[in-house]
Amino acid sequence: MKIPSALNRLNEALRCLPGVGAKTAGRMSLHLLQNDRAGARVLAEALSHAVEHIVHCASCRNFTDNETCEICCDNRRDNSLICVVETPSDLMSIEATGLYNGVYHVLLGHLSPLDGVGPKQLGLDLLDERIKSGQVSEVILATSSTVEGEATAHYIAQQVKAMHVAVSSLARGVPMGGELDYVDSSTLAHAFKGRRPLE
Amino acid sequence: MKIPSALNRLNEALRCLPGVGAKTAGRMSLHLLQNDRAGARVLAEALSHAVEHIVHCASCRNFTDNETCEICCDNRRDNSLICVVETPSDLMSIEATGLYNGVYHVLLGHLSPLDGVGPKQLGLDLLDERIKSGQVSEVILATSSTVEGEATAHYIAQQVKAMHVAVSSLARGVPMGGELDYVDSSTLAHAFKGRRPLE
Repeated sequence: MKIPSALNRLNEALRCLPGVGAKTAGRMSLHLLQNDRAGARVLAEALSHAVEHIVHCASCRNFTDNETCEICCDNRRDNSLICVVETPSDLMSIEATGLYNGVYHVLLGHLSPLDGVGPKQLGLDLLDERIKSGQVSEVILATSSTVEGEATAHYIAQQVKAMHVAVSSLARGVPMGGELDYVDSSTLAHAFKGRRPLE
Repeated sequence: MKIPSALNRLNEALRCLPGVGAKTAGRMSLHLLQNDRAGARVLAEALSHAVEHIVHCASCRNFTDNETCEICCDNRRDNSLICVVETPSDLMSIEATGLYNGVYHVLLGHLSPLDGVGPKQLGLDLLDERIKSGQVSEVILATSSTVEGEATAHYIAQQVKAMHVAVSSLARGVPMGGELDYVDSSTLAHAFKGRRPLE
């Protein structure tokens, strides 16, 4: 039996979603067609709308539906602090803490010469310009704690130091609620090295 | 920080997919916007197209983009055998075996009075009509081996028997490649009861 071509096309298209293979795509398309056609219509519209209207902020490369994002436009935020993150979702995680009042630079990836991702692709020229404008007093590196993330952070740190601006990175240590038993030795070593005197 | 409304809308819309919660939806939308906008556009079109063009076959309720599905239209298939399945994906699994040459009736669910799913919702009136036309010699019940599936099969069996047409159900037993150690006792009991003489 040949599957109707419209269904086949939908199955193929659903596989662009991360973590969705042939089996899951089939399950999703059958669910939508059988139980939720209205939802499928809404999803189709939301996808087209988002692809058309979501662009990257001209200043920090965060997602936005204007030219510059809400954070860069907000004049209550401290423009002298720039936090460097890999993805918009990392930015959202930091925003969710409600503790940080500076601005951001979103790399949209990490250095990966083999994949053709160099400083230009990470928008480091944009970051340079912002630092050179003279307003910036500190750059906080909040890249992932992976080999690639650390390498990227190291590269950016060298660049920023050359411009005589302070650089810092997030503290590494025991996570809240983490039992020492379950913390890996590398994290524990960092926590020891970074121990703080109690007042 | 407020998330751009177009992004928010996409996150909400993605949750209509089965097994996709808030976290996965966020990951999906960021992936699409960051790495695969072309894929997102294709998906939007495929969704609209499928919702518009995929309908249920007037005879067997399978998915089709015509009035009757390819199986019902195919005059090489044996119209005297009707296999009753719960969903189009069950139908596709049976088709994949390449062993069955009859036609189908797709219930699109199972009996569930509390959810308002009765014989009418399962298209049993359609099935009755086909049986009454006189061509049918056997109805094969291939509903799921769950309580609901079995109850539905029992109900249909009563109806078909009343019309003096043979009814059968799929064999229950040890699956191929299944080690006896790992087969549950209920399946094993069925396999014992249904044992076959070796020639």
